[in-house]
Parts: sequence; structure tokens; C-alpha cells
Amino acid sequence: MTEALISNTADNSVDAAAAGAQPGTPAAAPESASVPLSEAEVQAAVHAIADRSRTAARRMAMANRAWKDRALRAVGAALEENTQAILAANATDVAAGKANGTSVAMLDRLTLTEARIAGLVAALENLANLPDPVGNVVRGQTLPNGLRLRQVNVPMGVVAAIYEARPNVTVDIAGLALKSGNAVILRGGSAAEATNEVLVRVLREALESVGLPADAVQTVDQYGRAGANVLMRARGRVDVLIPRGGRDLIQTVVNNSAVPVIETGEGNVHIFIDESAGEEMAVEILLNAKTQRPSVCNTVETLLVHSGSTVLPAVAAALSKAGVRLHADDRIRAALPANIEAEPATDEDWGTEYMDLDLAVAMVDSLDEAVSHIRTWSTGHTEAILTNNLANAERFIAEVDSAAVIVNASTRFTDGGELGLGAEVGISTQKLHARGPMGLTELTTTKWIVQGEGQVRG
Amino acid sequence: MTEALISNTADNSVDAAAAGAQPGTPAAAPESASVPLSEAEVQAAVHAIADRSRTAARRMAMANRAWKDRALRAVGAALEENTQAILAANATDVAAGKANGTSVAMLDRLTLTEARIAGLVAALENLANLPDPVGNVVRGQTLPNGLRLRQVNVPMGVVAAIYEARPNVTVDIAGLALKSGNAVILRGGSAAEATNEVLVRVLREALESVGLPADAVQTVDQYGRAGANVLMRARGRVDVLIPRGGRDLIQTVVNNSAVPVIETGEGNVHIFIDESAGEEMAVEILLNAKTQRPSVCNTVETLLVHSGSTVLPAVAAALSKAGVRLHADDRIRAALPANIEAEPATDEDWGTEYMDLDLAVAMVDSLDEAVSHIRTWSTGHTEAILTNNLANAERFIAEVDSAAVIVNASTRFTDGGELGLGAEVGISTQKLHARGPMGLTELTTTKWIVQGEGQVRG
Repeated sequence: MTEALISNTADNSVDAAAAGAQPGTPAAAPESASVPLSEAEVQAAVHAIADRSRTAARRMAMANRAWKDRALRAVGAALEENTQAILAANATDVAAGKANGTSVAMLDRLTLTEARIAGLVAALENLANLPDPVGNVVRGQTLPNGLRLRQVNVPMGVVAAIYEARPNVTVDIAGLALKSGNAVILRGGSAAEATNEVLVRVLREALESVGLPADAVQTVDQYGRAGANVLMRARGRVDVLIPRGGRDLIQTVVNNSAVPVIETGEGNVHIFIDESAGEEMAVEILLNAKTQRPSVCNTVETLLVHSGSTVLPAVAAALSKAGVRLHADDRIRAALPANIEAEPATDEDWGTEYMDLDLAVAMVDSLDEAVSHIRTWSTGHTEAILTNNLANAERFIAEVDSAAVIVNASTRFTDGGELGLGAEVGISTQKLHARGPMGLTELTTTKWIVQGEGQVRG
Repeated sequence: MTEALISNTADNSVDAAAAGAQPGTPAAAPESASVPLSEAEVQAAVHAIADRSRTAARRMAMANRAWKDRALRAVGAALEENTQAILAANATDVAAGKANGTSVAMLDRLTLTEARIAGLVAALENLANLPDPVGNVVRGQTLPNGLRLRQVNVPMGVVAAIYEARPNVTVDIAGLALKSGNAVILRGGSAAEATNEVLVRVLREALESVGLPADAVQTVDQYGRAGANVLMRARGRVDVLIPRGGRDLIQTVVNNSAVPVIETGEGNVHIFIDESAGEEMAVEILLNAKTQRPSVCNTVETLLVHSGSTVLPAVAAALSKAGVRLHADDRIRAALPANIEAEPATDEDWGTEYMDLDLAVAMVDSLDEAVSHIRTWSTGHTEAILTNNLANAERFIAEVDSAAVIVNASTRFTDGGELGLGAEVGISTQKLHARGPMGLTELTTTKWIVQGEGQVRG
């Protein structure tokens, strides 16, 4: 869904300056639109936002943990205090979405409730309780010439996020960026525009209330799609860009961005059951990996079963009973008990991240064939092997090129919280900078600090 | 210089298939050119090279250190053995360069000699003696549910390099990629085409001689600029792209690449002398930072002197005596002794990486003004402060946002060798993945390995 990038044109026709909008805050509503901005004007406006973000980032980088935690708690308190205003704005967005024929799933993501706002507040409190990634010494030594050397985590600077119509992401990503000492520039979906406008205002006011710069949180929503495009090209002004959303949104950002991107989220996840895996464990892990929360990226999407395994009937029966629709190749279908239905699988099934109660199932004759299937279709997120064969486990670990490789456990463990990272920024499926679940440290970079007393190079 | 990307059209008119070229090796010389390849054909050919690179990368990832070191030494021996063939090919390139009116500096970089080949062999031996970055455990723990968790360095996979007409980079980057378990795809400058053709052949034969895949080293030089463009867009097929060369080459790659890029090398480096810095140290460090090797990226390009400092005459006299041409602002020029010349500096001087015996000099009235100048003009590579004031040192470290921040030492220390990294892949001036000198570890990514005995998520 490129929805976030393709907002309505009204977005783009707001002359923020003419409307007297405060810099960095959402401009007035489209009703007050006057002359559409030219491309050059949008670029100048977004660059000005980025430059204010850079200035704010310097102040954020100098704030110690106590100060940042105070800010996070102030944001939480302000969200509670403004719950009714947030819900009212959200109701406008939801009503507009319903009128536009937005899908039920999308409407659900768009909708905020008192309970969901309370959830955001709790997440901010959790963030406040986490250690500060800034200032951590990664490595260090004293060199033979007496130079003291250390490599230290420092904030990235300006973090940008482009995401779809999920207003909770506004608070979530802003909280993560602030905790790690960064300033953030947001581009939310136009479908959540009214909600985000209130949320950004609340965030900015809370920052100011503790003496931190409001411009550490800004949005370019008022410049619509054109603003998002400028943001993606602002290399040197923006240090990292994080797209959050569906495959199309992420691919659009990846293909059009000159700013370094961290690609997150797509998970076409596989489980391979080898000959030696026990039935009970296989049933339990498959049920957990497929049915515990089918709509998330670490849920299993394809099951590969060794032709020598005997667990297929039990596994298929359990999944079927749990409401899972099987899409299987011919050999699997022939091997299934008569009372278990399975649609014939096509290449589309091997390549699909269903995010639903669907599972593709293929039979393979060897570990090699399983690894080869995974290499062809995997998105490099998570793959698991169920086995009691040590050599197979070691080969699977070595040969599968994914962010997480799991032996005899559910794929649902690929998660920042489960792996002990505290907060999760996302799950990176690229190899640069961060791979797999990203915590706060992944929103920092490093700086080499070298201290001497006059050393020169020989 | 975009020289590497804009090769002559003859390059692009070689039908590799028609010419019967072996896959992955340079195609036949343009003389045998038949029909020019279409864009789609070049794309298919480069994608095929990338796919073979992926296959080779899997084998490289499984090779242990001893095997990879054997390969590096085999490459070294083969370079020695083929010295005359390499020099003959290089003479062709140099002659063509002279005929084209290539600058003396460019010709120098293009030229190989017996001594330079011996230098490449020694660098390969040094690489063989370094520890293997692959398999290093970054972190790990046993989770409360008994899952054993570790995050391990693994090869990136397919590394691509786009560089200018420096044939030594061919061997250098291939050696680094192989030691870190990767396959590499090279795109060298067309000016070094004959030399690179021989070097790539030697590399491939040496790999095969020890039982590693020749396709771990391939080139797309035969597809000219069109091939480079396909390589830059091959996200998913190429894991990381490293441009090496001048500013224009790097900017072209950064702006056109969909593959994650590591930006390296540009260094507009500053030294700030505050009021408290001693004269002797200031003279020694400035001489070292400016004159020891002026053509490299960690050499100082701008000197900022506090208006309360008394060291300027001595520093300027020493630099002037060493042949350094000063480009100074009005206040510095007024403060210089009559016998020392300095051209008036313009904004161009503040923004220039001279890489020569030139130095811009400005007077500032405070640490804030120095930091502000650095923020405006720095490329984020290295900045140093010379001071005896602890608070100033701490503020400079905290407020200057560069890959390396140095107190009381020469900026020439920002170097992989000097900082104990062994080999240097380049000096990253971006914040993602690697910042500052990059060693072998920066050519790896990580993999999470999770081992259990049936754990599911609650």
C-alpha cells in the first residue's frame, strides 16, 4: 500500500506560510487552502523543517537520561490529559475513512480507543525504564603511543519515519527516537491526518514543558506526497529513514530514497520439519507459530516437511482444527488424511506472506532441498528447523541466510521484547547496520574519541 | 570524477554472449564487438553475474579461516608469477591514458610497478595474518525460558565496488571481501580496463587453485556504464555497494543506488586551537596533520584559531616554511607576521578538501564559534581540538558530530591501521552501519541464532 505516499491533492495545496501555520506543526486544514505550493517551495519548506530538526537534535544529544525520561513521562501524562481531544480527532479520521470505503482491517488500525491510548502511555513508561543507549562504550584501548581510544554510541541525529495510517506509530516512533537522543520527522498517512495533528501537538508541548526543543518532533504531513518525496531525497539533512507499513510502501521508499533506509518487516517465514523431529513438538510449535498471532511478521507462512517424516497427519490435523487453511503441493495432498482439505499450492503461495490463517505446505526430500526452497522464497526474516539431528541443525544454522535462524522453537520469538532488547524499533530484513529485531541502540551511531597529549603520526 | 561510470560506448557494444566470453570474466576486447546490447540484455547479464556471485558467496561463507588465508596467499603468489603480464597490460592502459591527455596525478594512480605489485602481495599476506571476523559472537544469553541466544558475525554475501582507475583497488577490495567470506563484483574505471582484466583473471584462477569458486570475484566492466547502473539498482541481489574515488563518483553512486551504500572518504578536516593550547604542541601537530601526507582524507584542511591564542605566528611560520600555502580570513591576515603570505579566504576555501599543501585559516572568538564553523563546513570525517582546558575538551567531544573527534593529537590518526583495525576497507562518513575507519568486521552482518527444545511463545 502506497497510501501514505499518495495522499489527496488537498494536502499539497495548503500554503503553510499563508495559513500562518507554526513551523513544524501541521498546517491549517485543507479548507483554508489558498495557492498550491510549487515543488521548489515544498522542498524549501521541508528542508527548513529538517534544518530545525538538526538544531533540535543537537540539544537532544546533550540531554542526559533523566531528562529524556522526564520528557517521555510528560508525553504520557499529556496523552492521558488530552485523551478526549485525541479521540475526537480520531473519530473524524475514522468517519472519513468509512465514507471513503476503507477496509475493516485498515479502519481497525486507524482507530484509537481509551484502552489503546493507555497502551501507548504504558509503552512510554516502559521506554523511560530502559537504559540509555547513548554513551555506551562499544570498545576502547590505549594504543602503544599512549593515545586513549574509545568508540561510543551517540545519537543518529535526525531520524525520519514514513508510515501508514496507524496513529499509534506517531507516538511509538517519536518515543523511541527521543529516548535514543534523536530528533524525528514524521510522515504519517493522510488517512490519520487529524489524529496525527493532535498527537504531534501534544508531543511538542510535552517536550517544551520539560525544557527540551519542540522541534525534536515535527511532521511534514502538511506537504503531502510532495513532502514525503523531498524527505526521501534529503541525504545529508536526514540521517536515517525508517519506512513502516506494507510491502508496497517499503519498496517505494527503498527505491526512491537517497537517505539511508532501514528496511523492516516483511516476513515470509519457513519452518522445516526434518525426518528426526518428534510429533508432539512439531504440533505444538506449528500451532504457536501459525495461530498465536497470524497477522504479524514472525508468523510462519510456509511449512516444509521431509518426505521421510511421519508427523504430517498430526500436524495437519491440529492446524486444520485450529482453522488454518492449507495450500499444499501434490505430494503433501496425496499424503494428507482424507478428512483434511488442502488447496493446490502455486508459486504464488510460496511467495506470499499471508498474515492470516493460511499456510503453504511443501514436501522436500532432503535438507538441501529445504534450504534451496528457503533461499528461493524467503524474505530473510526468520526460518526454523525442527530436528533431533545435530548435523542437520548445524547445517541449517550455517546455510540459511536469514536475520534469525531457530532450532526447535517457535518463529514467534523473533521479536525485540522476546530477545531481550526492551523496546523494538522494527525487524530489519536488510544486512546493513541492523539485522533482525532492532532495539534503541540501532537508533544510534558511534563516534571515535581519541585523546592524547601531542601525539603525531610517525 | 564520474569517470568510472561514464566509460566509452565501445564498452557497451560488446555482446558478451556472441563473443563467447566466459561468464563473469571480462568479455573480449571491443575489437570483436558486434551488435550493441540492449538495456534489457545488459540487465539480464549483470543479474546473471550477481546470481552466480550469490552462489559463490554461499561457498565462501562456509570456508573456514585457514582456507580463506590459503586463497589470499595463492592470489599473492599468482600476482608475483604474473607480474610481467600485469605490467604489460598496465602499460597499454597508461599509454592510452597519455594519448587521452589524462592528468599526471591520474596517470600516477593508474600506473603499476614491480614495487607496487609487491606492495599488493604484502597487503594480502597482512590480511591472511588477521583474525577472521566471521563467527565472532557479538552477544548472547540464555533466556528465562531456556532458549540459547547468540548474535554472530556472518558475511554480507555479495559485496559490490565501484571505483576509479586505480587497479590496486581491484586486488585490495577483492582481498578484503574474500577474507570476510564474501563474493565481490567489481566495476573499475574503463581507463584501467586492460590491467583489471588480467588482475581479475589472476584472482579467479588463484581461487580455483585452492578449491574456492572463481565466481567469488567477478567484474561487470565489460558492460560499461550500463552495467554499473544495473549493479546500483540490484537491491536484493547485491547486499552492499562501496564506492571508492572522488567526490563526484561517490555522490553519483549515493544518488542513484537502490542497493545500500557505504559512503567513504571525503574529509574536510578541521583543527581548532583554543586559548590554552601550548605553542610547541600546536606547531608539531599542525605540521604533521598538514604535511605528512597531504593527499589523503585525514589531512587537515582548515585551521581555526581562537583570537586569544598567541601561537598563530609560530604555527604559520612553521607551515609556511614547510611549503604550505595559507588561505586566511582578514583577521588572521592582519595578525600574521609581515613575512608570511596568505591569500584571502572565501567560502570556497572553507568548503574545499584541498588534498594538497594548502590550508584555510580562520579566527574565531569562542569554542561555540569554532563548533559552529565546523558544523557548517565539515564532512563529518575528523576534527581535533588542541587545548589544555578540560571543559573545552569535553564540550568539543560532545558537540562535534564527526566520525572521529580528537583531543591533542594529529588528525592523521583516523586510519584503520593506526586505530588497531588491521586492514582498512575505507573511512565511512555516514552514520549507518559503520562510521569512521572500517575494518573487516564492517564487511560482515550478523545473524541471530536461537536454539531450544520445543519452546513456544506464551
